[in-house]
Amino acid sequence: MFKHSQLDSVKAWLAHPAHAAMPLHARIQRAIRQLILDGALGPGKPLPASRPLAASLGVSRDTIEAAYAQLHAEGFIERRVGSGSFVTDMTGFAPGHRRPRREAPLRDQAPRLSQRGAAMFHSGGVREMLVPRPFAPGVPDTRSFPLPLWERLERQVLKEVGTLALQHGDPQGAEPLRRAIADYVNLERGARATADRVLVLTSSQQAMMLCATVLLDPGERIFIEDPAYYGARRAFDAAGLESLPIRVDRQGVTVEPILSDPQRARAVFLTPSHQFPTGVTLALDRRLALIEWAARHQAWIIEDDYDSEFHYAGKPTACVQGLDPHDRTLYIGTFTKSLFPGLRIGYVVLPPPLVKPMTVARSLLDGHTASVAQLTLARFMEGGHFGAHVRAMRSVYAQRLEILTGLVRRHLSDFVAPRVPVGGLQMPCVLTCAMPEHLAIDAARRVGVELLGLSGLHAAGDGEAGFLMGFAAYTPAEMEVAVRKLASALQTVKVP
Amino acid sequence: MFKHSQLDSVKAWLAHPAHAAMPLHARIQRAIRQLILDGALGPGKPLPASRPLAASLGVSRDTIEAAYAQLHAEGFIERRVGSGSFVTDMTGFAPGHRRPRREAPLRDQAPRLSQRGAAMFHSGGVREMLVPRPFAPGVPDTRSFPLPLWERLERQVLKEVGTLALQHGDPQGAEPLRRAIADYVNLERGARATADRVLVLTSSQQAMMLCATVLLDPGERIFIEDPAYYGARRAFDAAGLESLPIRVDRQGVTVEPILSDPQRARAVFLTPSHQFPTGVTLALDRRLALIEWAARHQAWIIEDDYDSEFHYAGKPTACVQGLDPHDRTLYIGTFTKSLFPGLRIGYVVLPPPLVKPMTVARSLLDGHTASVAQLTLARFMEGGHFGAHVRAMRSVYAQRLEILTGLVRRHLSDFVAPRVPVGGLQMPCVLTCAMPEHLAIDAARRVGVELLGLSGLHAAGDGEAGFLMGFAAYTPAEMEVAVRKLASALQTVKVP
Repeated sequence: MFKHSQLDSVKAWLAHPAHAAMPLHARIQRAIRQLILDGALGPGKPLPASRPLAASLGVSRDTIEAAYAQLHAEGFIERRVGSGSFVTDMTGFAPGHRRPRREAPLRDQAPRLSQRGAAMFHSGGVREMLVPRPFAPGVPDTRSFPLPLWERLERQVLKEVGTLALQHGDPQGAEPLRRAIADYVNLERGARATADRVLVLTSSQQAMMLCATVLLDPGERIFIEDPAYYGARRAFDAAGLESLPIRVDRQGVTVEPILSDPQRARAVFLTPSHQFPTGVTLALDRRLALIEWAARHQAWIIEDDYDSEFHYAGKPTACVQGLDPHDRTLYIGTFTKSLFPGLRIGYVVLPPPLVKPMTVARSLLDGHTASVAQLTLARFMEGGHFGAHVRAMRSVYAQRLEILTGLVRRHLSDFVAPRVPVGGLQMPCVLTCAMPEHLAIDAARRVGVELLGLSGLHAAGDGEAGFLMGFAAYTPAEMEVAVRKLASALQTVKVP
Repeated sequence: MFKHSQLDSVKAWLAHPAHAAMPLHARIQRAIRQLILDGALGPGKPLPASRPLAASLGVSRDTIEAAYAQLHAEGFIERRVGSGSFVTDMTGFAPGHRRPRREAPLRDQAPRLSQRGAAMFHSGGVREMLVPRPFAPGVPDTRSFPLPLWERLERQVLKEVGTLALQHGDPQGAEPLRRAIADYVNLERGARATADRVLVLTSSQQAMMLCATVLLDPGERIFIEDPAYYGARRAFDAAGLESLPIRVDRQGVTVEPILSDPQRARAVFLTPSHQFPTGVTLALDRRLALIEWAARHQAWIIEDDYDSEFHYAGKPTACVQGLDPHDRTLYIGTFTKSLFPGLRIGYVVLPPPLVKPMTVARSLLDGHTASVAQLTLARFMEGGHFGAHVRAMRSVYAQRLEILTGLVRRHLSDFVAPRVPVGGLQMPCVLTCAMPEHLAIDAARRVGVELLGLSGLHAAGDGEAGFLMGFAAYTPAEMEVAVRKLASALQTVKVP
């Protein structure tokens, strides 16, 4: 029979609330397994016969037999006919010498990560707000998304495609969606796309990672805008690339630093429609100059057509990809802003020779994108609902931008000047007083207002002080409350 | 006015069927844009006045005005009051010198990929069959998935959570799903998990990539099983790791090669429940020896609990993670096989100090997993439907394995011997005749039967000749037809 202490520890296991969901025999099996693993029941030691153990624990003999059968199946005990069960003598493993379970000295040490893993960790990653609070940037309004319509289209898809939609999907993406995306970017963005050049992904973040990995090796250089979108910069850092920041002015990224030393990097990352965070549009002559540079030096243009759906004065400038006859441009788009972040569908329109390599690489990263969501989205686009939703939201967001501009001028003019953008989901505001940026942001956070600092988006952290204010996801009333709170909070900041 | 050739090319653009979806003014704008980009309309050249151009094209003057306005907005033309519109003189860009659009000499060259990109491409990636044909391995049966129930739960989720479910999700995963996964692996797999140690991903493929990247640097070594799951080996290759193959015998991976030179690698990748492709279960003493090795040398065990849900004789052996008191084991699971591949939800149970670094790294890869699917799955698990579905499929698959075994013995005994596994979704068959493996596989493919060769799964490609036969996704009738076809096909193979 077990010693008292052993029986007590089995009983304690059985009674532990964390194990309440397990069947009784599984709990007994686990408890005895633990005695063996801890060395309390050594190799060769006999186990109690099932009848007396059942009696001591107040359970049926069948329950004990089930527990023993599983211990036997897993190799913890041997059963000898006529003489009972014994703890297995396991070669190459001495339970008595194991570190005691709760005192493993190494457990709480910081783990040794790879250099790239540590770099990714320290970058902070890309964390979005789960319940967006004013004025978190880059967040669309999902409250007015036509969810019943979406659900109806999804039901249609499942009815028509049936359980085949549950199987593995094409790693390049569902053909109807690739076609709908090509039609959309051709019509609305002046792109030159066909369905077989579209690769469907889960996000523009994944697109940036994939481009960085497949096109460039660790240590190779890429030109990025300065200031830059942090998600892009961190993706390139994570891929081991060296980012070379190029100054952005009122016409977008400057091209002289690239043209004057054209072989310094093998790619450039652009947000030409509405540069992040400045909101400026890249001028046509610069677009054409970069295309020439890429063609001449076999370089790549990675075009993130950031927020192009939301342009508030006329149509946005056509994308770089459509101007590029040399197929050096990779065009990245996403439905995160134009539909909803939880959808997890982004895409990249590729030069033809890159389609297969990028598709294969994507299959190694995470296989493919969920099929039902892709087919539902294709139907949403084909039915004209995507265009209608974007148009509706564009007018809502244009109005919200105007309202926010008014609120900032009315309540915050002692502190900041708004730089009203022509599009996008956020407005930069530049500090016009001597207040340090981080104090302003901390004060705002204390009253529940989220601001993203501008200077940290500059390569050297030395850009203009100020902050981004997202406006798309918040109603006029919510914005007014938040701006008033912010004004009071900034009043209290002691400028050093 | 335009020259005839110019007018013709505008007319051709308008009439082209590929542009039929575009509004007329957009087509005219694009056609003129192309003339400028091609250099046919040089810098400073005047554009026709809108009235005569409208007349030549047979459109309204407003249409021409709209096209010109967009050309102006995009920077292609300048408008001078009283004297009309002119092609912009773009600094730094000489349209006349551009390579002609259709003859760019570099377009069809193979693109220069990064070394890692080229390696990923040449590995072939992980491509699954879209419409599974017998006997493609690793595919579950989705035809009996309770889709109406799943849809009902999804509707409940959307009703209760509303459009908030459309926003960004926690990069670690939705808390209810993490809780459900922890409960499941604790109960069914003998793991030691809590919700805050679970990281929800899109697939086990993503889990392998993430582990490889965050734990090891390029050039570092990892022990893998030999033969091995190709998806794992290719993920490690893609991450730049050097895989060291360790022989598998009837008790799973052998541990002597690891223990005799324990510092040769910093991690080991295991499929202990049903090794891929052999189907063997890793013996207990080896599990414990590997845990000791990992603890002593600060190494990591990456445990892919492959097909553990489908064990046909008693319960499967508890996982390695639950036996490891030192927190050196990362436990990978997926719902691809137990529910359906299109779901795109996998997970990893992490040692506590790895939770934050891995979550941050994941946010850089692709943000987070779609929330609605996560919340629906959590409800499916909480309601007991997951357990019920797995039990139902386990009995279906056990029967299919038995039927396939009988069919192979009856019809293929001249060629192969089945190695009946205790679990999993596929059965290895070893060639017992002199037929070369690739000829058998080619002959099968010609009659529509898919087989995965065994020898290619060995590190040196020199393992036993034979093939894997997946059985889970195919009905007994489908399997009988396919086995008969396969038998006839193999009869025709001329053994050299």
